[in-house]
Amino acid sequence: MALALDWAARGMYITAPNPRIGCVIVKDGIVIGAGHTQPAGQAHAEIQALRDAAARGNDVRGATAYVTLEPCSHHGRTPPCSDALVQAGLGRVVAAMVDPNPLVAGRGLAQLEAAGIEVKAGVLAEAAQELNVGFFSRMVRGLPWVRLKVAASLDGATALAGGESQWITGEAARADGHAWRARASAIVTGIGTVKADNPQLTVRGVDTPLQPRRVIVDSRLEIDPGARILQGEPCWIVAAVENHDKAAALQAAGHEVLMLPNARGKVDLPALMRELGRREINEVHVEAGSKLNASMVREGCVDELLAYLAPSLIGPGQGMFDLPALERLADRRQLRFHDVARVGDDLRILARFVEPAA
Amino acid sequence: MALALDWAARGMYITAPNPRIGCVIVKDGIVIGAGHTQPAGQAHAEIQALRDAAARGNDVRGATAYVTLEPCSHHGRTPPCSDALVQAGLGRVVAAMVDPNPLVAGRGLAQLEAAGIEVKAGVLAEAAQELNVGFFSRMVRGLPWVRLKVAASLDGATALAGGESQWITGEAARADGHAWRARASAIVTGIGTVKADNPQLTVRGVDTPLQPRRVIVDSRLEIDPGARILQGEPCWIVAAVENHDKAAALQAAGHEVLMLPNARGKVDLPALMRELGRREINEVHVEAGSKLNASMVREGCVDELLAYLAPSLIGPGQGMFDLPALERLADRRQLRFHDVARVGDDLRILARFVEPAA
Repeated sequence: MALALDWAARGMYITAPNPRIGCVIVKDGIVIGAGHTQPAGQAHAEIQALRDAAARGNDVRGATAYVTLEPCSHHGRTPPCSDALVQAGLGRVVAAMVDPNPLVAGRGLAQLEAAGIEVKAGVLAEAAQELNVGFFSRMVRGLPWVRLKVAASLDGATALAGGESQWITGEAARADGHAWRARASAIVTGIGTVKADNPQLTVRGVDTPLQPRRVIVDSRLEIDPGARILQGEPCWIVAAVENHDKAAALQAAGHEVLMLPNARGKVDLPALMRELGRREINEVHVEAGSKLNASMVREGCVDELLAYLAPSLIGPGQGMFDLPALERLADRRQLRFHDVARVGDDLRILARFVEPAA
Repeated sequence: MALALDWAARGMYITAPNPRIGCVIVKDGIVIGAGHTQPAGQAHAEIQALRDAAARGNDVRGATAYVTLEPCSHHGRTPPCSDALVQAGLGRVVAAMVDPNPLVAGRGLAQLEAAGIEVKAGVLAEAAQELNVGFFSRMVRGLPWVRLKVAASLDGATALAGGESQWITGEAARADGHAWRARASAIVTGIGTVKADNPQLTVRGVDTPLQPRRVIVDSRLEIDPGARILQGEPCWIVAAVENHDKAAALQAAGHEVLMLPNARGKVDLPALMRELGRREINEVHVEAGSKLNASMVREGCVDELLAYLAPSLIGPGQGMFDLPALERLADRRQLRFHDVARVGDDLRILARFVEPAA
């Protein structure tokens, strides 16, 4: 299964909106076929592994398939994998986990079992879950998995008070940040960041065929049509106040303008997250300033912080989150450290928000 | 040698101002004696190991002694260990490192060699150095090793703007903090912290016979004689402005008042560090507020940050260091991460200041 997970990870940047799945077929202790999910509409991991076995002249009858997710049993963009496994005469199927997709949800394994194949589920399930945290989030909650990236000094400053922020972290951390961007299907930023830094927010230095969709939260549609972010692939610009001329111009340039106002005349961020889920965005990467960061956190839209801390002290400067002052320490927002790693000279911290006890 | 380092570490809280040294005597591949440095004035590690071997009826003639520092060759509070090793008839002495103490500095090994003992130095030297970072700092620079502790939220707040700070980090981190206090021979705090938190700044929950000396930076001698910190063991109170009555009262209560003014009428912190070195303080543990923390950093008095980060977001609050705003990002203070560990739910970061290129 660990090998199947390695295969799954090879699909990191290509399978969206499908999950990253790997499959390894083993017979008499020897791997006779392996594969991972291809881009949407193309073969799933199981089919790839069966083809690989066939191409190598191996007979899969009676073999065991290790697959990182329960094989699908429904007709989506491709025919069901469970049918293919039955037809191929597999003897045993071991799945890392049952598919949380309500269209599958145990039916794939049941169908295999009904066809006389021995099945097992729940092997290295946690690692399989992590690999597709966004896909599962969308299946279970209808929402993408939202990861918010910040880069700061050890004393918590993301920039000088005057704005200078390039670069607080080192090259390795910035490259690592691009890999996290590449995992995501959408990058969300705010008009403040577009105005201040005029970024492209594309993925660079990672070998990926898919560029994440850039999404700009711009309540009053203030974006300059000449902004660098608008020069490449189409963006989704999310506004709260109508501005027909501006919207028409942006749309004429190939971009899409979404109107998602909340009662305060700002972009309704939870509604935006639901919309991104509806648009089959599995993972969202937020790279914004302290204002949008804080709004995302306050409105409960963030699942995970991806914080790069540099070994430096800056003193007064811009903070990570422009949150309101707390009255009581007990009201602080609680997370738990999920993963901590050294990246170059910097530290990378993944921390997940803890649901407040209801 | 790894075993000798383990023995050395057993002396963590008792050897000051002497270094923490371990010695293991091996003959025919078997450990026949081991020991570590005892409290000052009592036996060094080598003597302990020889005694241990003798007590166990083992013949050390021709054996190899692994010792985490070059044996001393001078008469200090105790006779030279090199003499004892020669007299005992050891065949070989392996030292983790040469003693940086100018009174020894290779002479111990030379003396052993002259007596026909095979010697070697430089085995696991880095680990041996770390164990006695303060002792070596004092020998080489005449200064203690200064470690500054902060506890903050992930976004860098040590307390709410209103002051509430108990507790940002969890129990495990606080207990760990006490172990670091216990390593130190002096705890430095400021009058601001004494006024705000009225702490005892003693070591609790660590089995140590020595309490670090509490040192209070109190430029104008404002300390309340009823402060909790003054109720136990004598403190050193460091002032910059004369106040004979207050000083007399503090001294009558058993405390010592040191006058170390700088040109600005504040305590001369570099002079204080030199004075602590002169008083044989190996490691200093700074636990203070953002003002004294910043002064210590600005005046180049800090070697290492011991930062506990809690997985929480606080937003606006008190920072770790009340540093002046920078004009240029290039002027930020640079450190390097030395060690990062999870402690309970929190993160412990040891980061060392990088000397600016001259």
